[in-house]
Amino acid sequence: MKLYQSDASPNSRRVRIFLAEKGISMPLVPVDLAAREQFSDAYAAVNPRRVVPTLVLDDGSAIGEVPAILRYIEEIHPEPPLLGVTAKTKAQVAMWERRAEMEGFASVMEAVRNAAPRLQNRAIAGPHDYEQIPALVDLSRKRVGNFYADFDTRLAEVRYVAGDAFSVADITAVVTVDFATKAAGLPIPEQHAALRRWYDSVSARVSMSA
Amino acid sequence: MKLYQSDASPNSRRVRIFLAEKGISMPLVPVDLAAREQFSDAYAAVNPRRVVPTLVLDDGSAIGEVPAILRYIEEIHPEPPLLGVTAKTKAQVAMWERRAEMEGFASVMEAVRNAAPRLQNRAIAGPHDYEQIPALVDLSRKRVGNFYADFDTRLAEVRYVAGDAFSVADITAVVTVDFATKAAGLPIPEQHAALRRWYDSVSARVSMSA
Repeated sequence: MKLYQSDASPNSRRVRIFLAEKGISMPLVPVDLAAREQFSDAYAAVNPRRVVPTLVLDDGSAIGEVPAILRYIEEIHPEPPLLGVTAKTKAQVAMWERRAEMEGFASVMEAVRNAAPRLQNRAIAGPHDYEQIPALVDLSRKRVGNFYADFDTRLAEVRYVAGDAFSVADITAVVTVDFATKAAGLPIPEQHAALRRWYDSVSARVSMSA
Repeated sequence: MKLYQSDASPNSRRVRIFLAEKGISMPLVPVDLAAREQFSDAYAAVNPRRVVPTLVLDDGSAIGEVPAILRYIEEIHPEPPLLGVTAKTKAQVAMWERRAEMEGFASVMEAVRNAAPRLQNRAIAGPHDYEQIPALVDLSRKRVGNFYADFDTRLAEVRYVAGDAFSVADITAVVTVDFATKAAGLPIPEQHAALRRWYDSVSARVSMSA
């Protein structure tokens, strides 16, 4: 089993943190995004979507899409559980991880990809070219603001994003905050004290340097 | 347990088909989207995101987000399995269901919501208002075309979207095709024979009328 990934890719970081929380290591195969290595024939043979990360199993099967990769890892290394334990907590973790991704992570990604001059015609990652839409940048930044406000409300009520236990929902939310801060100039606004308290506590975990 | 849903909502239909495949029935509580019932105080108390569907458990917990709802149902009613069986098939189903949703379903939704006059300022479902961006309509329609082409290639190689077995990935893909056809005027292009063969076979299942 090996993970094709990039140190510069926030989606790859979601997987690296997950592995670190599990105490698992596996070979990491670097894909140089700056050199457009994901568009090479060699990488297209690994993942025809030409995105990172990709988990390649010992039988050669390739698993793309971060939640699918994390589901595989959780199945083969259940401890410590990061996707919930009971039917109810599995569903709550799935709900909150997805909300962190769709409302937070995806909004930051859209803001960044529609603004960066080097990504002209590459507004969406993958095998197809899509032109940038400048109006999407403002809309996406507004969505990041709403993500921050909504998760601040949530984290005033619960310790972790999905409830009582640390989970993959926290990983996605921390990666989102760091990505928004560094790539979009959108740090946590000062008034969101609950979100900040959660972030300071969770981002201090050893796994977060992965 | 009960499901708040709308007959007019393609996201609700994903859950209804899933339940029908499992042979499960549960009380369906209608939410009248045309009358904006999702914005009522009563529904906001059920799901603060103000979207359908929402699964409410017997203890009162609310589960939103379709994949989270389906995960819960699969956990409590494992047969027949629709999310995979082994670690590997669980990951493959998760990957393909997500691709059907992100590349297909989400593209149709974006094309529809950015075009409909009645959805001005409601370009994204949820508690926050977002203005429509006309340029997104063309881009989203192009994405639907690429989804059709890529899934045609896939279905020339395998019987079902995720491989050998019918799964939730087929459900999401069928709902996407029907949604694209009816709401966006984008039926399967004639040249995609493999996709059409798959669609004709899968959409004939009894569950699909749910």
